[in-house]
Amino acid sequence: MISLSFGLYTDLYELTMGQTYFEMGLADAPACFDYFFRTNPFAGGYVVFAGLADLLEILSELRFNQEDLEYLESLGFDGRFLAWLENFRFQGDVYSVREGEVVFPLEPIVRLEGGLFETQFIETLVLNILNFESLVATKASRIRLAAGDRLLSEFGLRRAQGFGGVLASRAAIIGGFDSTSNVCAARRYNLKPAGTMAHSFVESQPDENTAFRKYAENNPANCIFLVDTYDTLRSGLPNAIAVAKEMAAKGNRLLGIRLDSGDLAYLSKKARQMLNEAGLPEVKIVASNLLDEYLVKSLIEQGAPIDIFGVGTRLATGAPDGSLDGIYKLSAVEGKPKLKLSETRAKVTLPGRKTIHRCLAEDGRFEGDVISLADETPVPLMVHPYEAEKSLLLTPFLREELLIRVMEKGTIIHKTADVAEIAGYARERLSRLPAECKRFENPHLYKVGLSEKLIRLRDELVRNLRQE
Amino acid sequence: MISLSFGLYTDLYELTMGQTYFEMGLADAPACFDYFFRTNPFAGGYVVFAGLADLLEILSELRFNQEDLEYLESLGFDGRFLAWLENFRFQGDVYSVREGEVVFPLEPIVRLEGGLFETQFIETLVLNILNFESLVATKASRIRLAAGDRLLSEFGLRRAQGFGGVLASRAAIIGGFDSTSNVCAARRYNLKPAGTMAHSFVESQPDENTAFRKYAENNPANCIFLVDTYDTLRSGLPNAIAVAKEMAAKGNRLLGIRLDSGDLAYLSKKARQMLNEAGLPEVKIVASNLLDEYLVKSLIEQGAPIDIFGVGTRLATGAPDGSLDGIYKLSAVEGKPKLKLSETRAKVTLPGRKTIHRCLAEDGRFEGDVISLADETPVPLMVHPYEAEKSLLLTPFLREELLIRVMEKGTIIHKTADVAEIAGYARERLSRLPAECKRFENPHLYKVGLSEKLIRLRDELVRNLRQE
Repeated sequence: MISLSFGLYTDLYELTMGQTYFEMGLADAPACFDYFFRTNPFAGGYVVFAGLADLLEILSELRFNQEDLEYLESLGFDGRFLAWLENFRFQGDVYSVREGEVVFPLEPIVRLEGGLFETQFIETLVLNILNFESLVATKASRIRLAAGDRLLSEFGLRRAQGFGGVLASRAAIIGGFDSTSNVCAARRYNLKPAGTMAHSFVESQPDENTAFRKYAENNPANCIFLVDTYDTLRSGLPNAIAVAKEMAAKGNRLLGIRLDSGDLAYLSKKARQMLNEAGLPEVKIVASNLLDEYLVKSLIEQGAPIDIFGVGTRLATGAPDGSLDGIYKLSAVEGKPKLKLSETRAKVTLPGRKTIHRCLAEDGRFEGDVISLADETPVPLMVHPYEAEKSLLLTPFLREELLIRVMEKGTIIHKTADVAEIAGYARERLSRLPAECKRFENPHLYKVGLSEKLIRLRDELVRNLRQE
Repeated sequence: MISLSFGLYTDLYELTMGQTYFEMGLADAPACFDYFFRTNPFAGGYVVFAGLADLLEILSELRFNQEDLEYLESLGFDGRFLAWLENFRFQGDVYSVREGEVVFPLEPIVRLEGGLFETQFIETLVLNILNFESLVATKASRIRLAAGDRLLSEFGLRRAQGFGGVLASRAAIIGGFDSTSNVCAARRYNLKPAGTMAHSFVESQPDENTAFRKYAENNPANCIFLVDTYDTLRSGLPNAIAVAKEMAAKGNRLLGIRLDSGDLAYLSKKARQMLNEAGLPEVKIVASNLLDEYLVKSLIEQGAPIDIFGVGTRLATGAPDGSLDGIYKLSAVEGKPKLKLSETRAKVTLPGRKTIHRCLAEDGRFEGDVISLADETPVPLMVHPYEAEKSLLLTPFLREELLIRVMEKGTIIHKTADVAEIAGYARERLSRLPAECKRFENPHLYKVGLSEKLIRLRDELVRNLRQE
């Protein structure tokens, strides 16, 4: 059993700044922060947003326990500040797109409002949870796109980044996977657990035939044989077929065989043929071994008769990117809009309390998103963030606001959907994103623009700051 | 607060196989497994082994609690098996190289002996912890090699893979980092926490000068100003210098300034010059922004006067690899040596209870490692694993056995070193590895051979299995 207290699950500077705000009397000054990212991962065209339910649960339970406070005291934090932390509860408001939403660079996906201390302090936590779950949900959705309607099982815990594997399995299901091998995550998030057998089981027995037979005797209803421990085509499959026939004679059925090495296209075709010739057309073929969206796509294009793909390492670690570049930036303090300058134009942040409106064609297809100030009435025009001469008239489109209030004064007010519902939402939303934005190679850039009012505010603040 | 019960921190198949062993009466049959990896990460020449103390702690506390058992019951596990699990404790023996040891592909770094159930069941856990910590410790050691004796601080929690960030910070220190921003990990593992300020602090104030002054008033002894919120050279540095002089007038000292964007080589040189001209040669320069071993090396080669490097994402996620390919394979059951065949020769596993002897030159330099059976007397010759004609006579070398018993019948018997000691051990061991094995481009392959007896055993088992 490991217990992590989220009071210390942060970067030291959040607490140092927090103490400074406290001492300046600014701990409760109203502040607003945005969570957003700058680059789609995997050179793709979108992100599937995930992690919200975990984040809200942690925020609603956030406390500093006595051990946390003693540790902070040992680091030299001030007694008055620590006494204040003892009663700390997160009491901010959170506005967010729904979990499972398809989102794009620059968009303020989550807006957090509250006192300057509480909204600053949670930065590391927000980023840690949302960046990682969104990364993996996005990866999973790409593998789902490649796999069509074949079954997908997540196997990544053994190569996951430590305890992060628990979140990875949840995010994999949100992105479109059917099951996970991770029992801890399955229980915690009500996911479907799945699994077969390891090479060691086969090796532990005197021979492969005995291993399969013993396994079938003890697991008659849930039997998938791993057939590559010794020799897939000359030993594994013949033994699996022999035992499948013995099972059939007792009224049981072999569910499948698993290939975990070698050329999966070649071996799956041979295996299908051998199983069919043995009168076992219903036995499924499971394949695993360092799969990702590109290999799954290639196997399907080659006509590999694989029914179930097991995907581990590259899904659970979000390879090859390994991280989403999500950031958390101050956009207002005490009612005043704020921004961070940068020599790189794309790194100048967007000031003020903002929201996102999505434009829809009549058939529901996503046509573009506009970021505006939260209190603007729906805007008629969206403008390119950096090229003022590029704009799009929005009147032909239906519009929906994406940000909804999910937490009010620290209390979760939007019923958290369970993971299956979130996955369903992600699937439905992805189906409305044009295919060109989902392709793996050079995806089409989905349009995200700003309202004219937001651009004016940003440009005015930039001018003022540069003049100072 | 999150609590993870390690009873379920596993792949479902470990439990399914476990129940099968239990029903076959084999749960307590003596078994032996090896943990090893096949490929050095980062196209490098070695791995720094990390994660052992975490693993041993978890093994010694491993239980199935009532909620775990109820969940397994809901999945259809058998009542008799669950009753047995209720009293389960890990009671195996663990032999391991020391944490911080420099290790190489194929070596049985950890050998686990015990009942077939317990040693099989912990597979996922062993891999999850050791793969990830070793990956990050190795990455950190490469950054340390590039950085020489400059200070290194780990900043990765916000981009880390969820809760895995706690292990990442520990592993970063083992690999040679000086401090971490991660307060949770710092407390848990007694690491040095460190941090500065964020852009949001500067933005929260009316202007940059006020922000620095207020921060200095409240943190007179621990002040590093982030200078790139508006304009590094025209605003950030002049303001930092002005406030540093005010601090000096009060008898305080500005510790440093931090650069977090732009061309770090150019800006650090300019910053150094401006600080020196202002009579502040003692103010340190901290640099961060997507650093890794290659960028640190390049900055130093360019003569960038950076005193402290902050490294986040690429360290905490072990980028670009994201995972170590460590595996856990059965090597003996009931005293009989076992192996897994493969069409790829390098994937045939090594049978039997094994150990590693390291050969040392007189000056202590590592010359090569030999894997032998655990009960062999020190062997005179090591042979290439796949090319029998390549061998090396070991008589000129000193030898040390690397595997020591660290756990006996489930009890930790080797006093766990604290992280600073482990880091010291890693540093000392790495210093003995020839420089050619540590270089980033095409590192020299460190010699790892087998004893003749182990080769004979392996080849005999392979022949027998192929004949069947």
